[in-house]
Amino acid sequence: MILGRDVKLSGQPVTDIATAPNMKPFRNDPNGDYETGQMYVEYVKLAHPRFAVPMLMWHGGGLTGETWETKPDGQPGWNTFFMRAGFDVYVSDAVERGKSTWSKFPEIYKTPPIFRTKKEAWELFRLGPNYNDGKNPVAYSNTQFPLQAFRSFAAENAPRWLTNDVPTQEAYDKEVQKVCPCVLVAHSQGTSFALRAAEHAPDKIKAVVLVEASSAPMTKGVDFAALKHIPYLFIWGDHINDSPLWPGFQAKARAYYDGLRAAGSPSEWVSLPDLGIHGNTHLIMMDRNSDQVAQIVLHWLDKQHLN
Amino acid sequence: MILGRDVKLSGQPVTDIATAPNMKPFRNDPNGDYETGQMYVEYVKLAHPRFAVPMLMWHGGGLTGETWETKPDGQPGWNTFFMRAGFDVYVSDAVERGKSTWSKFPEIYKTPPIFRTKKEAWELFRLGPNYNDGKNPVAYSNTQFPLQAFRSFAAENAPRWLTNDVPTQEAYDKEVQKVCPCVLVAHSQGTSFALRAAEHAPDKIKAVVLVEASSAPMTKGVDFAALKHIPYLFIWGDHINDSPLWPGFQAKARAYYDGLRAAGSPSEWVSLPDLGIHGNTHLIMMDRNSDQVAQIVLHWLDKQHLN
Repeated sequence: MILGRDVKLSGQPVTDIATAPNMKPFRNDPNGDYETGQMYVEYVKLAHPRFAVPMLMWHGGGLTGETWETKPDGQPGWNTFFMRAGFDVYVSDAVERGKSTWSKFPEIYKTPPIFRTKKEAWELFRLGPNYNDGKNPVAYSNTQFPLQAFRSFAAENAPRWLTNDVPTQEAYDKEVQKVCPCVLVAHSQGTSFALRAAEHAPDKIKAVVLVEASSAPMTKGVDFAALKHIPYLFIWGDHINDSPLWPGFQAKARAYYDGLRAAGSPSEWVSLPDLGIHGNTHLIMMDRNSDQVAQIVLHWLDKQHLN
Repeated sequence: MILGRDVKLSGQPVTDIATAPNMKPFRNDPNGDYETGQMYVEYVKLAHPRFAVPMLMWHGGGLTGETWETKPDGQPGWNTFFMRAGFDVYVSDAVERGKSTWSKFPEIYKTPPIFRTKKEAWELFRLGPNYNDGKNPVAYSNTQFPLQAFRSFAAENAPRWLTNDVPTQEAYDKEVQKVCPCVLVAHSQGTSFALRAAEHAPDKIKAVVLVEASSAPMTKGVDFAALKHIPYLFIWGDHINDSPLWPGFQAKARAYYDGLRAAGSPSEWVSLPDLGIHGNTHLIMMDRNSDQVAQIVLHWLDKQHLN
């Protein structure tokens, strides 16, 4: 557990919470000390790693570290793939998610959380163009997502806050200081934290893999010259241009990539359809062909002088 | 992921959530379909298990599966101990906690959650008699809890609901149907679910280890005769009688134990101080001598004809 900070609540009302019709209410006094901003990280160290540096896997928004574990269809995920390939692997739950747990709102977190509907998961993550109220959802005909496992994926979705970027970045930066030098592998919202983490500690980062970098930060003020020794791999699925929001997300990432390349970074931009690999969703590591894409990532990492 | 049920929300207001002073509010429409009642279970299967049945580890209230993992002081936890002893180990996060994620309240969960203060953790879990507002907390002089790691333990505490017992029990019962025959190892609130799970599927349960069974259900209506073939181990730490709530918790568990014994169950009741082992808290699996207690449990399991 990476610690955040201590916080004290006072002046909160003591309340009685009804538990069940036949039980007396529970007296709850929320005043006192709490931890907040902590981050849970789980790791597996191999007896004989092939790579000298570990891999840190950072998930996306509204999800947890389960992103990298067994896939919704029950097949092995990327954490298993990269362990078998010879990496020590560190899988975290971001601040506020999963085993990192979360803090009272609005007293500590400033806003209420938001919850992802199945419709949003289906359409925003590009499984298909139309959830149709769940009655007859339309998937892309070539989708790589295991549609029969969609409920299991929906069950992985976690409430998220829109106001916790600062403590989340701080926790990731602490993880980098504690664990790295390393390779960062980040997905979706996690790519924003990975890009900033590399800016904050460029000497600690050996390579960055950005899976569907939906959240690239603004390039203004970024010292790309300080990052030019780091190789970045931007990797994208299919149907970007069939989805209203994705061309804009991708354009922000492209600006960041262009800044890196202009400074001399040996970075690469891979669109899977350009390689003849079609139908990947935003959830590439959960798609049926996840091992095929992981193999592309591994092949790229093998060229990056990690040892 | 063990699935729960699908739930549809409608008629919810669409709101704008401010994220930061310089950003436009985020439009959030919570109406739609969600999963609820699911439970995340992580497992490790050994290449060569020594025991024919796996061990399911169920944590207590306000905590997650981290209970069984690396201890707050960084030392290996009981999941590692029992893997090394030859068990396949299944560690879950209860419904509403950790990677199981949680559902909107009051729309799906009926009440708000409660949050555990450090004072409650210190005193209720019997680290010592007085938290003293955190300024100079008093521990029992012989405490086995690694006090320097108390902040790390506080960071593991998760919000909990008092109204989710039914879906939680359902998820555990599904896990038993999916994974067992097995051994159940449960802590605190988890012991309530373990005792009920054994009642619901007595043919699936080879042994039950109850670590500080704070939440034993009422014995009225329990068919102890149907459980008489199952060995139960009730195990307790120190300072029970120094804490106002614990004698009452223990008396409920003792009534259940007495019911089992009267029916002929080969169950045992172990108070660690009676064995000359002093200073254990409610968090026996996180105490400094956790391996010593795990060894007692393993020795008992070795006698239970699990293979």
